[in-house]
Amino acid sequence: MSDVALTAGTQPAQELFIKMAVAAWDASTNQCSKLFDELTDDQLAAEASPGRNTGKYLLGHLVAVTDRMLPLLGLGERLHPELDNAFLANPDKSGLETPPLQELRKYWKEVNAKFSAAIAAIPPGEWFAKHTAVSAEDFAKEPHRNKLNVLINRTNHQSLHYGQLLYCRPKK
Amino acid sequence: MSDVALTAGTQPAQELFIKMAVAAWDASTNQCSKLFDELTDDQLAAEASPGRNTGKYLLGHLVAVTDRMLPLLGLGERLHPELDNAFLANPDKSGLETPPLQELRKYWKEVNAKFSAAIAAIPPGEWFAKHTAVSAEDFAKEPHRNKLNVLINRTNHQSLHYGQLLYCRPKK
Repeated sequence: MSDVALTAGTQPAQELFIKMAVAAWDASTNQCSKLFDELTDDQLAAEASPGRNTGKYLLGHLVAVTDRMLPLLGLGERLHPELDNAFLANPDKSGLETPPLQELRKYWKEVNAKFSAAIAAIPPGEWFAKHTAVSAEDFAKEPHRNKLNVLINRTNHQSLHYGQLLYCRPKK
Repeated sequence: MSDVALTAGTQPAQELFIKMAVAAWDASTNQCSKLFDELTDDQLAAEASPGRNTGKYLLGHLVAVTDRMLPLLGLGERLHPELDNAFLANPDKSGLETPPLQELRKYWKEVNAKFSAAIAAIPPGEWFAKHTAVSAEDFAKEPHRNKLNVLINRTNHQSLHYGQLLYCRPKK
């Protein structure tokens, strides 16, 4: 271990990497929030690319995925389980009824406020506990299938759709 | 700490976290590799969405970003510094000369093979050392600005562009 690594070691490594993973999630979420605030209803109602998902679908999809993490990480009840059918179980343009865009914008804020506050309060050791969708038996063999790993993977998922949502912006 | 977290604690937390972050990078890279193999030259030469970056530009951009991580993480010399001007310093359609698509496909494989082998060999403590673009002084105050944090952020960056590259696929 280099001297520099030992310097880093003055803060317990476990807390340091929880901080890194949570910061990456927060950065991704803030980036999306800023973009949603910037996009008009018309821009969000349009397809990100011709024949692809609309910005509205991607917004509802991301809200539903974050909302599902609440019970998955043991952080309490979901706020909007009613979104799953239209935004997770089915593709865009399914013909299913969906909330108006203004409601979805509100849900994005509510769900993320609840989720961010909840993850900020998770005790360090708890992040390495199993999430609720893996059995104790499987977890004993695969200890990386913990709560922090869920957050890391969901951050990448959110970034993927953020890249697509950028195409809802008007062209320069 | 719950019992389950203690079970996870049988493997040192530091190594577990490194494994999670490297696995997330590898998953993102494999996802991209699979997509690049699937896309034809014509599909990659086209814009991901009208008026946006071409698949070719995104491919060159991702190769350059990974190539730059070699010196940034202290893993040796870059393989293709000549890509920076056309794929990092300048936007798509700059008129700058670029390698043919077949060359870029080869560079993707070469750079990622070198990078993946190099990160697999980094000793655990070294991941928490500072990267070469942060000063020792800043690092003492902000120990999260370490090598592993670079990898986490670059994984999200790659996922963002992967989401856009998916639009180079033919519509169903």
